[in-house]
Amino acid sequence: MSDFWIYESHTPGYEVRWRITDILHQETTPFQKLEVVETVELGKALILDGALQISEWDEFIYHEMIAHVAMLSHPNPERVLIIGGGDGGTLREVVRHPQLNVVDMVEIDEQVIKASKRFFPQVASAFTDKRLNLYIEDGLDFARGQHGPYDVIIVDSSDPVGPAEKLFTENFYSNLYKLLDDEGMMVVQSESPLFYREDFKNAYKNIKSVFPIAQVYMACIPTYVSGPWTFTVGSKKHRADTIDDNRAVPAYLKYYNREVHKAAFALPEYIRQMLD
Amino acid sequence: MSDFWIYESHTPGYEVRWRITDILHQETTPFQKLEVVETVELGKALILDGALQISEWDEFIYHEMIAHVAMLSHPNPERVLIIGGGDGGTLREVVRHPQLNVVDMVEIDEQVIKASKRFFPQVASAFTDKRLNLYIEDGLDFARGQHGPYDVIIVDSSDPVGPAEKLFTENFYSNLYKLLDDEGMMVVQSESPLFYREDFKNAYKNIKSVFPIAQVYMACIPTYVSGPWTFTVGSKKHRADTIDDNRAVPAYLKYYNREVHKAAFALPEYIRQMLD
Repeated sequence: MSDFWIYESHTPGYEVRWRITDILHQETTPFQKLEVVETVELGKALILDGALQISEWDEFIYHEMIAHVAMLSHPNPERVLIIGGGDGGTLREVVRHPQLNVVDMVEIDEQVIKASKRFFPQVASAFTDKRLNLYIEDGLDFARGQHGPYDVIIVDSSDPVGPAEKLFTENFYSNLYKLLDDEGMMVVQSESPLFYREDFKNAYKNIKSVFPIAQVYMACIPTYVSGPWTFTVGSKKHRADTIDDNRAVPAYLKYYNREVHKAAFALPEYIRQMLD
Repeated sequence: MSDFWIYESHTPGYEVRWRITDILHQETTPFQKLEVVETVELGKALILDGALQISEWDEFIYHEMIAHVAMLSHPNPERVLIIGGGDGGTLREVVRHPQLNVVDMVEIDEQVIKASKRFFPQVASAFTDKRLNLYIEDGLDFARGQHGPYDVIIVDSSDPVGPAEKLFTENFYSNLYKLLDDEGMMVVQSESPLFYREDFKNAYKNIKSVFPIAQVYMACIPTYVSGPWTFTVGSKKHRADTIDDNRAVPAYLKYYNREVHKAAFALPEYIRQMLD
């Protein structure tokens, strides 16, 4: 038997490789190269432009942490916008919240949704939710349009190279600000503070220049380069690091809990200092 | 120019590789294979039996988190024992505490100390401290002997294969219990909860069966397999998840702070459930 591996390379000096047993799907969409592989360690994995996006093994960490922190610190998240997140994992977490009335989701690449429905049905499980309006278009264009107002906006983008690059700019965050209700908040995945240090710092700086409240929180994600991962919140009124004692947490979560919510905002010194 | 890499393999399906520019040292000690390399991403790195132990880039995370949590939750850590930790990083952190009167350190492999002094002088910076008594012997034997009593014991072992295997047993923890003062606490590095899941669960189970208080905390360590890393405390009287407001924290730390101390004990659901 031969050895088959997928290599993921983020810098010239570091590579991660996962052994695969099958290549389930490969295509070049209008936006990116999309691949689905069966791995030995992670179950199935979705790869976009050579970077692992989700694995069956640990996708719950990223999706729970990008969704529930804002959904549970905002007092009443009825109207939600998701930009990106075509695999459906963030949507799956958002629809767990009983307050939700409407969720708009904007994905630039319909092929990601199709691949996720076919290969990751447990991730793409909420596309039939009646509260969902799905837009296949560029999140940048959508953000310039007349939509909302929203209580919570979640930017679930890929790395800031390729199609997602302009989702890390002050201009984009300003447009999201306009789409938010007066009590609204948004959250973005803001990359590895080590391997995408400048992107992380820029996201925070740009969000801070647009929103009166800017806060960073973290999760440790095994399949994302080197582990430490950041999310950055921009909020008009409510802080994101608190969850009301009376607020019910969705059942059966595998990463998020009340203590993790608060703890995620306790930044290690080396990361806190990047924000000064 | 050729490409040179060091591969680190923990399971058949996952490998991490770091590009190296030089092999600075290689030897086979009586206990293990010891190598020092110069890497592109991490500065110098110490490798024991193929597993990366410390890198100049991120050693502060492991060393600050294994040392300061116990040193700052114990009310008066005057007498400390370190088992393992031959590179000297844990010792460097322990001697920052002004309460310290005596620190005994037991390392089985003197060659690790020598290599660290030669190649990692900023890690091995405290071996000249006058409060240090250095023992070159097996930590297992030392723990069976007449020593102490100690206020804090830190078990800074390598992975539970090879020389460190018996440092994860109930028998060993029972011996450490006897070396501790009535108010004493110990802390062990207890591995990746994902890649050394059984070792992690066993360490907790064994410590819980010996000590009235057993608590797990975490740090996210980029160069340790996949990121999430655990430490487990066994304590006779004092909980480890609190730091007194009046207690001074050593200056110039790069990971640890008061908020991180408390937050490190907020375990994600999937890890909390491993301990039930």
